[in-house]
Amino acid sequence: MHILITGAAGMIGRKLTARLVRNGALNGRAIEKLTLTDVIVPDRPKGFSGAVESFAADIGDGATAPKAIAGRPNVIFHLAAVVSGEAETDFAKGVHVNLDGSRMLLDAVRMAGDRPRFVFTSSIAVFGAPFPDLIPDEFQHTPLTSYGTQKAMIELLLADYTRRGFVDGVGIRLPTINVRPGKPNKAASGFFSSIIREPLAGQEAVLPVEDSVTHWHASPRAAVGFLIHAAGLDSAQLGPRINLTLPGVGCTVAEQIAALRRIAGDKVAARIRRAPDPLVSRIVAGWPRRFDPRRALALGFQAEASFDEIIRVHVEDELGGTIVS
Amino acid sequence: MHILITGAAGMIGRKLTARLVRNGALNGRAIEKLTLTDVIVPDRPKGFSGAVESFAADIGDGATAPKAIAGRPNVIFHLAAVVSGEAETDFAKGVHVNLDGSRMLLDAVRMAGDRPRFVFTSSIAVFGAPFPDLIPDEFQHTPLTSYGTQKAMIELLLADYTRRGFVDGVGIRLPTINVRPGKPNKAASGFFSSIIREPLAGQEAVLPVEDSVTHWHASPRAAVGFLIHAAGLDSAQLGPRINLTLPGVGCTVAEQIAALRRIAGDKVAARIRRAPDPLVSRIVAGWPRRFDPRRALALGFQAEASFDEIIRVHVEDELGGTIVS
Repeated sequence: MHILITGAAGMIGRKLTARLVRNGALNGRAIEKLTLTDVIVPDRPKGFSGAVESFAADIGDGATAPKAIAGRPNVIFHLAAVVSGEAETDFAKGVHVNLDGSRMLLDAVRMAGDRPRFVFTSSIAVFGAPFPDLIPDEFQHTPLTSYGTQKAMIELLLADYTRRGFVDGVGIRLPTINVRPGKPNKAASGFFSSIIREPLAGQEAVLPVEDSVTHWHASPRAAVGFLIHAAGLDSAQLGPRINLTLPGVGCTVAEQIAALRRIAGDKVAARIRRAPDPLVSRIVAGWPRRFDPRRALALGFQAEASFDEIIRVHVEDELGGTIVS
Repeated sequence: MHILITGAAGMIGRKLTARLVRNGALNGRAIEKLTLTDVIVPDRPKGFSGAVESFAADIGDGATAPKAIAGRPNVIFHLAAVVSGEAETDFAKGVHVNLDGSRMLLDAVRMAGDRPRFVFTSSIAVFGAPFPDLIPDEFQHTPLTSYGTQKAMIELLLADYTRRGFVDGVGIRLPTINVRPGKPNKAASGFFSSIIREPLAGQEAVLPVEDSVTHWHASPRAAVGFLIHAAGLDSAQLGPRINLTLPGVGCTVAEQIAALRRIAGDKVAARIRRAPDPLVSRIVAGWPRRFDPRRALALGFQAEASFDEIIRVHVEDELGGTIVS
């Protein structure tokens, strides 16, 4: 089993790599080789006895995709992307990476003719307001950001390439990942994590939107689980609609804060400072809230059952069980 | 008023050009110039006193789009496309014209910075089975052909470019055009017209699918009306969901044949020969049947009221009122 991960130096990429190394196998086959690429050189995973090829490259550069798949990977996890806030402020960069880079990778795979399993990380940003409170699997894709547009376009291309037999694709619309460890990234959704992460680490966090904002969350641990589950899905069971909205926890910012208070106490929850930001509010207002992801649930995808559980995963996986109260 | 038409030598392009020349104005402004392009040189319209620039070019060639918009058109009708059957059998050509050509045109417009009204002819092929019997405006786009994929991708790009203010876009999902005059083209939907057109001209027609196949039709005259109506739509009224499913006549092949019999008699209807074609049947099985196009109706788009009326339009516009019985 040879696995390619693009965006391997990112938060999810690193966690996925670590989990694969820990598991030692994917889809019941021993992992012999990992090819890892990102805009910076991904770290070589510790404790892995197989071959590792790790290199820095721009996925939107014509030479990158052929190089990335030269070793004929059996499974590709395509995580590389410019995040939503940056794709909105730097239009050219978003198009270059999210649209052209993804297309180049799909075309390189098509030319090679090996038909690997291609797991594409899409996003719930393919949906745009107005929508019903509970969004069904059949709802249209009318994104209100360039990021969502680029993800929706690649979903379409992935489905056509899969239908034509060029690749064995699965697109997964990840919920917003919460709690993201480390420093904030440029995603407009960053505050959903900051308001949990910073208070738990003894720091102040800024909340740029109203408490009533509702959103759809899953932990990094769940996200890695989604990716691995997607890699093993049976194509026949999946059918032609290969792009899936994944399960998550739907809750308001107020419910997030209440969960934080239950788990870490009033003093921690008091570290959230309200500072409305019109740009962030405008972007988030166009985002979906809750889904009814029946297909993904029927296909065995599993998220957390509550936001409390999402916080506990963060405390376990990132803080060694310790909260700065 | 300066108008650019791509695909101007095609059936709809020629009829649109003739109608614009006859009207003399668009959106209440006198038409001073027409720029016409296609893979063959479009005919210069008769009876037009304004300037005409007419040239042959490949829209997927990097030089074509900048040349086409060099005269800074106020309204662009982007009709150029490789049809469904050909985009399925010649994948590279479909991508080159339908995806890359359209994107190049949008990018040329973005660079020029004039923000013209950009009417894009999309297709109901952006929908893919399974769907409900009556498809609502909010239904997802899961095309089952490369043609439908390419159209759906450009719809997304057009919406994002419109949202960002690069262009003032309207995408219209045309019903299948019926009755197409002239010779059959390579569209998999060609038989929907042949079974009416050929018998009315005294010739045999081949029906490659079952009589129970249901489809969504509008006449060439209605299609030209749709395009002109789209050019004049108020952006504020349109809102962010700029791609619209248009009204049409939903009926079965059996109902088409019954209408032909009512208008032209048994002898004409008997000229239809059944010859099932698995490839055509497979493509058509993935196509939608009937729509509930509330938004387009509310925005004033109008199609025929019955298939009888569609046949009468053909007899009037193409046959000078004469049927070979």
